[in-house]
Amino acid sequence: MFDRSEMSRDGLKINGDRLNKTLQSTCTSWGALAAPSTGMCRLSLSQEDKQARDWLVAECSNIGCEVKIDEMGNIFAIRPGTAKDKNPIAMGSHMDTQPAGGRYDGILGVQAALEVLRTLHENKITTFCPIALVNWTNEEGARFPGAMMASGVWSTKSSTGLAACWEIQDSEGMRMKQALKDIGYLGETKCDYRENPLECHFELHIEQGPILEKEGKSVGIVTSVQGMKWFAVRVAGVEGHSGTTPMPGRADALVTASRLISTVRDVALNTGLGVATVGVIKSDTSSQATIPAGVEFIIDIRCSTDEMVEQLAKSIFKAFDQVMIEESNGTPYSIQRTWGLPESIFHLQCISAVRTAAQKSVGEDQIMDMKSRAGHDSAWTSRVCPTSMIFVPSRDGISHNPNEYTSLEHCALGAQLLLDSILYYDAKVSEGKF
Amino acid sequence: MFDRSEMSRDGLKINGDRLNKTLQSTCTSWGALAAPSTGMCRLSLSQEDKQARDWLVAECSNIGCEVKIDEMGNIFAIRPGTAKDKNPIAMGSHMDTQPAGGRYDGILGVQAALEVLRTLHENKITTFCPIALVNWTNEEGARFPGAMMASGVWSTKSSTGLAACWEIQDSEGMRMKQALKDIGYLGETKCDYRENPLECHFELHIEQGPILEKEGKSVGIVTSVQGMKWFAVRVAGVEGHSGTTPMPGRADALVTASRLISTVRDVALNTGLGVATVGVIKSDTSSQATIPAGVEFIIDIRCSTDEMVEQLAKSIFKAFDQVMIEESNGTPYSIQRTWGLPESIFHLQCISAVRTAAQKSVGEDQIMDMKSRAGHDSAWTSRVCPTSMIFVPSRDGISHNPNEYTSLEHCALGAQLLLDSILYYDAKVSEGKF
Repeated sequence: MFDRSEMSRDGLKINGDRLNKTLQSTCTSWGALAAPSTGMCRLSLSQEDKQARDWLVAECSNIGCEVKIDEMGNIFAIRPGTAKDKNPIAMGSHMDTQPAGGRYDGILGVQAALEVLRTLHENKITTFCPIALVNWTNEEGARFPGAMMASGVWSTKSSTGLAACWEIQDSEGMRMKQALKDIGYLGETKCDYRENPLECHFELHIEQGPILEKEGKSVGIVTSVQGMKWFAVRVAGVEGHSGTTPMPGRADALVTASRLISTVRDVALNTGLGVATVGVIKSDTSSQATIPAGVEFIIDIRCSTDEMVEQLAKSIFKAFDQVMIEESNGTPYSIQRTWGLPESIFHLQCISAVRTAAQKSVGEDQIMDMKSRAGHDSAWTSRVCPTSMIFVPSRDGISHNPNEYTSLEHCALGAQLLLDSILYYDAKVSEGKF
Repeated sequence: MFDRSEMSRDGLKINGDRLNKTLQSTCTSWGALAAPSTGMCRLSLSQEDKQARDWLVAECSNIGCEVKIDEMGNIFAIRPGTAKDKNPIAMGSHMDTQPAGGRYDGILGVQAALEVLRTLHENKITTFCPIALVNWTNEEGARFPGAMMASGVWSTKSSTGLAACWEIQDSEGMRMKQALKDIGYLGETKCDYRENPLECHFELHIEQGPILEKEGKSVGIVTSVQGMKWFAVRVAGVEGHSGTTPMPGRADALVTASRLISTVRDVALNTGLGVATVGVIKSDTSSQATIPAGVEFIIDIRCSTDEMVEQLAKSIFKAFDQVMIEESNGTPYSIQRTWGLPESIFHLQCISAVRTAAQKSVGEDQIMDMKSRAGHDSAWTSRVCPTSMIFVPSRDGISHNPNEYTSLEHCALGAQLLLDSILYYDAKVSEGKF
């Protein structure tokens, strides 16, 4: 039986000021947009990301963690426990951001995990299981297309494995593997949960939506992640000169694509099955005087269940067929599924760890159960180890935006719940109950 | 009175094989797309453009032309005449292409002018006026936005003068002036028709449309160029996460822009006033998981008269207001006029020179008068000196496309008409009639 002091662990408090100071100063140093914006552009495997990573590795090493880097650049900083045969209880998230993102999406989860490690260290707490901070590579998929990429490889459950991911290129043609090498994060630890396993995975994250704020709650206990799929669409038309090609009979790929894009919105709105969005569009031409021969765009579809994702996609493509009959002048469109994340159901033992921690800190009426409408690395970890997430409120529900904001108090509360959750879980494991 | 031999000039023939060989070999050497495409990417002031320019300057110098380079990189290769007080009769066009253009748009006009100079040289013809080949810089506006840019500066009638054009940047941030300097074509001759005047301007060009082919004609005598304007539109929305932002209440800039783009087409088609096209579109985000905060696109409007351009623009923007009421959720759009070319009426003395030449070569039933639906450098020269154009057929009306094609016979016919037109004009000037 593991020998522990219930008293010292029960009263343990994270340091909210230290967390906030560390989060703000590292954001200011590596990837900040020009002031007065508090926005971030810390693209995965960029120089800014490298500097943040180097700092993180040094901080974790300084407080006695062993640091492993895997083949996808995922960082595992592990604080030893007393048990010899147990895998680490992990606290994971990501430090990369959108091109115009904020300081909290992902970053809060990693910084809170560091704050937990620091708290354990300065209070000389001995845990039964090892405790790991995990920084997952390229969660955003903003530089190298494919969100939650490296946790997907680690879980071995995503459709793109290591070799394929290494070949993915950014918009400049830089390959993932070369980018990992260039910044010194092409590690030797296998990126595979079977060779580098975790006991369980907790993730603190901002909600990125308006629900907690609207409901007046401080904590969301995340019980599932909605299913999502991305489809790349290419519309083919006939290129021509904008001045000499008569309006009747044109096969204008951008006009057709435009009608398809508003159709995506109309179908999602009218069916109520979920959300569907087009954010990225590319015309074949860079000349204002050319009718483009082709246009490409990506549809992002998300629903509560995988079945609803399928239904919504089917409804959208059925509506596309009608538009193409009206618009195409015989030219085609093609659809390629680029990426998908099935609906994820989180695990009762992790959910109960978070619930117990939250009830103790803020009481039942500040808590609500919720599903995540955004994808997270936890969706992949949940495929291969017990997982849950803690949500804290996003001001005005804004995320993927420089105005993203979560209060100092909510950040500190989240870190405290992360600490309490892993200690609860650790206790249960040591008692043989989990 | 100018002493000339009517006989030797009347029977003078250009060499169609030499023209074709020179045109094909220079296209293959500088800017060809990968075979088997016969397409071209010879962007203005690129290395490929520099090589073609260097070759042209050398060829013209070798046959006794004086070569002047002006402040916008326009090349004037001038073959002396006997009159001391006459300005050159010019044969102008351009050697730059669209990013995926063909071998004939612009290039034919310059190569035919060279063939005319070669023919005059090898037959030792003495003209009254000097005869100039002019290669206008950046006609396409494909690299540095603003088509017919350098002829616009030379005419001093466009809205953007020399200083503003020098500051225009390509998509990599390279400024026009630096690009001119880098390839050695920032000349000292003033880019101003008052300081570097022309007697008149003839331009041979492919039609870039289907009309000649459809009507079974070999030659178009161009009597006017339709008016055109470009408008840059920016739609503002509210950025958000594609997964967490509910469908109702979104202010999605791309959905709104899509509806505006199909509106552009609908209004142009329904009013029948002219053509209106959107070729270039740019979303603020490069992330598939972000609702874009803004989208920019450019509208190209062209009609027979300036009044119709105004009417069509007004009708489009009125329809935009309705879309914005339905879509915007209170977010705005803005419009900026970026560029315009007023309707151009060509000159009777140049038109009659072309008509006389065409009647002699192919007879009345192979000729038709037409307006140009594309912009050309001749539209600007016509503001400050007598101007007309010769059109030859484009196969299937295709242009701004690698499949652009004009037969060897039609190219040779065009060059012959160019020669005959300038000799006719020269004779009239020497006789004091023009």
